[in-house]
Amino acid sequence: MQLGLVGLGKMGFNMRDRLRAGGHEVIGYDPRPEVTDVPSLKGLADALDAPRVVWVMVPSGPITQQTIADLAAELSEGDLVIDGGNSRFTEDQPNADLLAAKGIGYIDAGVSGGVWGKENGYGLMVGGSDDDVARAMPIFDTLRPEGDRADGFVHAGPVGAGHYAKMIHNGIEYGLMHAYAEGYELLAAEPLITDVQAVLQAWTKGTVVRSWLLDLLAKALKEDPGFDAISGYTEDSGEGRWTVEEAINHRVPAPVIAASLFARFASRQEDSPAMKAVSALRNQFGGHAVKRVGLSG
Amino acid sequence: MQLGLVGLGKMGFNMRDRLRAGGHEVIGYDPRPEVTDVPSLKGLADALDAPRVVWVMVPSGPITQQTIADLAAELSEGDLVIDGGNSRFTEDQPNADLLAAKGIGYIDAGVSGGVWGKENGYGLMVGGSDDDVARAMPIFDTLRPEGDRADGFVHAGPVGAGHYAKMIHNGIEYGLMHAYAEGYELLAAEPLITDVQAVLQAWTKGTVVRSWLLDLLAKALKEDPGFDAISGYTEDSGEGRWTVEEAINHRVPAPVIAASLFARFASRQEDSPAMKAVSALRNQFGGHAVKRVGLSG
Amino acid sequence: MQLGLVGLGKMGFNMRDRLRAGGHEVIGYDPRPEVTDVPSLKGLADALDAPRVVWVMVPSGPITQQTIADLAAELSEGDLVIDGGNSRFTEDQPNADLLAAKGIGYIDAGVSGGVWGKENGYGLMVGGSDDDVARAMPIFDTLRPEGDRADGFVHAGPVGAGHYAKMIHNGIEYGLMHAYAEGYELLAAEPLITDVQAVLQAWTKGTVVRSWLLDLLAKALKEDPGFDAISGYTEDSGEGRWTVEEAINHRVPAPVIAASLFARFASRQEDSPAMKAVSALRNQFGGHAVKRVGLSG
Amino acid sequence: MQLGLVGLGKMGFNMRDRLRAGGHEVIGYDPRPEVTDVPSLKGLADALDAPRVVWVMVPSGPITQQTIADLAAELSEGDLVIDGGNSRFTEDQPNADLLAAKGIGYIDAGVSGGVWGKENGYGLMVGGSDDDVARAMPIFDTLRPEGDRADGFVHAGPVGAGHYAKMIHNGIEYGLMHAYAEGYELLAAEPLITDVQAVLQAWTKGTVVRSWLLDLLAKALKEDPGFDAISGYTEDSGEGRWTVEEAINHRVPAPVIAASLFARFASRQEDSPAMKAVSALRNQFGGHAVKRVGLSG
Repeated sequence: MQLGLVGLGKMGFNMRDRLRAGGHEVIGYDPRPEVTDVPSLKGLADALDAPRVVWVMVPSGPITQQTIADLAAELSEGDLVIDGGNSRFTEDQPNADLLAAKGIGYIDAGVSGGVWGKENGYGLMVGGSDDDVARAMPIFDTLRPEGDRADGFVHAGPVGAGHYAKMIHNGIEYGLMHAYAEGYELLAAEPLITDVQAVLQAWTKGTVVRSWLLDLLAKALKEDPGFDAISGYTEDSGEGRWTVEEAINHRVPAPVIAASLFARFASRQEDSPAMKAVSALRNQFGGHAVKRVGLSG
Repeated sequence: MQLGLVGLGKMGFNMRDRLRAGGHEVIGYDPRPEVTDVPSLKGLADALDAPRVVWVMVPSGPITQQTIADLAAELSEGDLVIDGGNSRFTEDQPNADLLAAKGIGYIDAGVSGGVWGKENGYGLMVGGSDDDVARAMPIFDTLRPEGDRADGFVHAGPVGAGHYAKMIHNGIEYGLMHAYAEGYELLAAEPLITDVQAVLQAWTKGTVVRSWLLDLLAKALKEDPGFDAISGYTEDSGEGRWTVEEAINHRVPAPVIAASLFARFASRQEDSPAMKAVSALRNQFGGHAVKRVGLSG
Repeated sequence: MQLGLVGLGKMGFNMRDRLRAGGHEVIGYDPRPEVTDVPSLKGLADALDAPRVVWVMVPSGPITQQTIADLAAELSEGDLVIDGGNSRFTEDQPNADLLAAKGIGYIDAGVSGGVWGKENGYGLMVGGSDDDVARAMPIFDTLRPEGDRADGFVHAGPVGAGHYAKMIHNGIEYGLMHAYAEGYELLAAEPLITDVQAVLQAWTKGTVVRSWLLDLLAKALKEDPGFDAISGYTEDSGEGRWTVEEAINHRVPAPVIAASLFARFASRQEDSPAMKAVSALRNQFGGHAVKRVGLSG
Repeated sequence: MQLGLVGLGKMGFNMRDRLRAGGHEVIGYDPRPEVTDVPSLKGLADALDAPRVVWVMVPSGPITQQTIADLAAELSEGDLVIDGGNSRFTEDQPNADLLAAKGIGYIDAGVSGGVWGKENGYGLMVGGSDDDVARAMPIFDTLRPEGDRADGFVHAGPVGAGHYAKMIHNGIEYGLMHAYAEGYELLAAEPLITDVQAVLQAWTKGTVVRSWLLDLLAKALKEDPGFDAISGYTEDSGEGRWTVEEAINHRVPAPVIAASLFARFASRQEDSPAMKAVSALRNQFGGHAVKRVGLSG
């Protein structure tokens, strides 16, 4: 089928390739002239046959908001917009309302798989009406991994459910990554273990902890033994924070995901203000030596 | 090759099957007459040709200690004992020393894969001397999953390294399971999500969180939607506790694995003494109502 | 000085007493006829001499919002409203703006001390302009504990700062209480300790952990040894949740406060959905027995 | 009464002063000639009248073990040894047995109060027999804070109970300190708060969080605003680690104390190996940029 695709970055660019390889007609728009198929959103709307389906794949937050508002101006009754970015699920209903005022449908789609999705297919979680989802199904079926639809695609519920599921997916991802990371550090700390990479590699088949993330960790450590070249400084992209906030909203204990998130915060601190306070306290009551800034160890 | 196998429980029984299917001559011993091939450990020693290789697959702790001591009495110089149970790695060197005093070799082998290993192969992590490991390699090659040896087997280091690696494997497993579990609870708490099982199922391909554990979780939830039939009461088998203890020994922060372990402890408490103290405190300073035992909520 | 006081519940009632004992003229309003001094908010406004100062001490959230909106209607230019409840600090600026539109000043005041404040004085953290704070200082000076003003009162910053400081105070309180609670549970678990209450009592002087909360915990345990009469079921009043949300907003690792909050969530669950998932997973891969609901342990 | 005191460091030196001021005859031994009263342990034994009471106040671990073994050689039947250091409670029974073989009694005494104990008195938790404790009571009564004995002293149980109680005391201390430290960091992160020290100071009276540790934190921040001069690098002295190990042994969830301990471990890492692994993973699946070592942010 025909699809408009707004945003041809790391994810959108690959998705265009996969969709075209699957036989769809994809017209992409991106502000960068070297990748775009049309010069503007208006040009995109003009190039598509009504009723149109437009997939938005731009950074979450204000850029997504603006893109959807701009699309509301360019599109017409009966069109359909899919937000495939990492938007917070609470933004979906406002987006849907904005578009519904013009008779335009809305689907929120969580997309997982990263740079590997082009080849392996993308895991998809979508929210919206049955009719809208059915209409975009040919696109979903090409983007998702081959095999049973239920193993790589879910219509998770009404508008918002797709991004909620994706948010939780990423929250889990934080926890999984940190579990492996703790295990890695514990292996690296033990002199009995003569080859940490070999242990991780050996876990990739047959064990209870085997997973795609483990495959990647074993691969990464092979490429950079000891992770000597990279820093532990790690960004977080929003979903982890939102997951903990939803845990609070739903009164769900989430110690593992929260700990993973806090470890990312800590990774970006030169020194911990909290630990300065602890160090100062120990000095106050116990006369314990504190390490002075600027002095060696 | 010929192998003696002590312990024909859930794990050992299946391993005997897999090894025999792989062409090995396995003589099993178990105190239960209905499964054993020989009447006693002595009978096992007699039935095996020297130099013997004997795999011990019994519950960790005193039973393993006793079994190895008994084997030390029955076996001879040049024999080899493999402890494939979930022993604490700190017990391996004493076991090795006990056997070395009689000229018997020792390998510690961590075995992962659970009840599925018979079919899929077992992930193996072993510790010991190069010579001992080479000698038992035909056994390891049959037990491990098919494909590259490095993807399901590792000679992780000297005696103790195999069980250390297995301990960390299980510590990671705790963290992974709890990350999925928190995500499950967060999905189940959100009204937008109309079918939690379908979301988990959709994550099994293409997503970043895909794994064998996720496959099992989706399967379990399909069999028992809402997990209505089972309690959250959950045992722990030792490796999680030992992993946190090693984190302490190595001064490695392990908040995710520790949180997973503590959640198991909490699952076995009728009520939390700590929370009783918190509740009592709130009542003391704030006049906040406490819930009296025996009164409805 | 003269003060209007809206809300004569557990906190407001005691505060009226303390203020009157301090020589202030307090006119209180509460919907309950048995405690109110005037029949309505309008009656309160009429009874006060302009320019008026009115302290609001009602439950945080919609009731506070409504009360402040109602006061905006009844009060006049030059009056001053103080919100002394546990409002979220993000609500202060909107409240201040609403009142400022009518020329009415606003102070947010965090009040700590619970039911003991009447006797000991209340710890006060306020936010607002210098002029507004100066104007209300006679009230603050009577409410706060005797001694140096700086030891029980702080003008923490502009509007919002008082409630922010109170929120963090309560977040810390969660962590402190849970630290003691874990220690209590660890004492109670150890057979060597013959009298847990005596240990807590002995910590109340001279030790590093001495505090008012510890005094209360020792007292509570004396009144109810073993906390046999009360349940661990524990509510949370908002500030703990908000503190963790601010930790997320500020990218500050807050594992202790988060753990304390999650423990409260868990205390209110009959069974843990997350642990049901863990239990189901263990059964899937390991054949570990699960505890069936409705069967004894 | 007469007391031998072995170890005149930061704690022992002050204790000698307090005991002498209380009218006791204290003969101190320390290897440093400038502080010792006698030239050797043998000299100490000779200088004391039998039956002797000797208080050991040396660093926990091998030095304490050796000191007690040396004392066993120098002392006689009917003497009494008190270990007042921060020994692990599991070492007490072996110490007691060693001394009992010669008819010498043993008390383990946890001592809290740090450098302030000389002036304020020390919180004391002791383990041992009723007779031994009664015999040393004049010493305990002088060391403990003035006022009711029960508020600064406890005979917590048999040998080991004193050090167990002290271990838990210190575990709680870790949690308390970290709760304040998180709150401090959250105050410092918020622009609305114009003077963090003033907020902490204002909490010292009347509030729920008031405590001696809070007094010290406010004092420390006054001396070094922003904690600019000190590093967050923080040692741990053993009791925190042991407390978490006992939590594991007793199957008690201890997330707050564990988090506090892990934060100390993290404070001593130049970079986090675990976070390097997380960063590497994110780069693998998402193409997320990693921060290269040696490059600016």
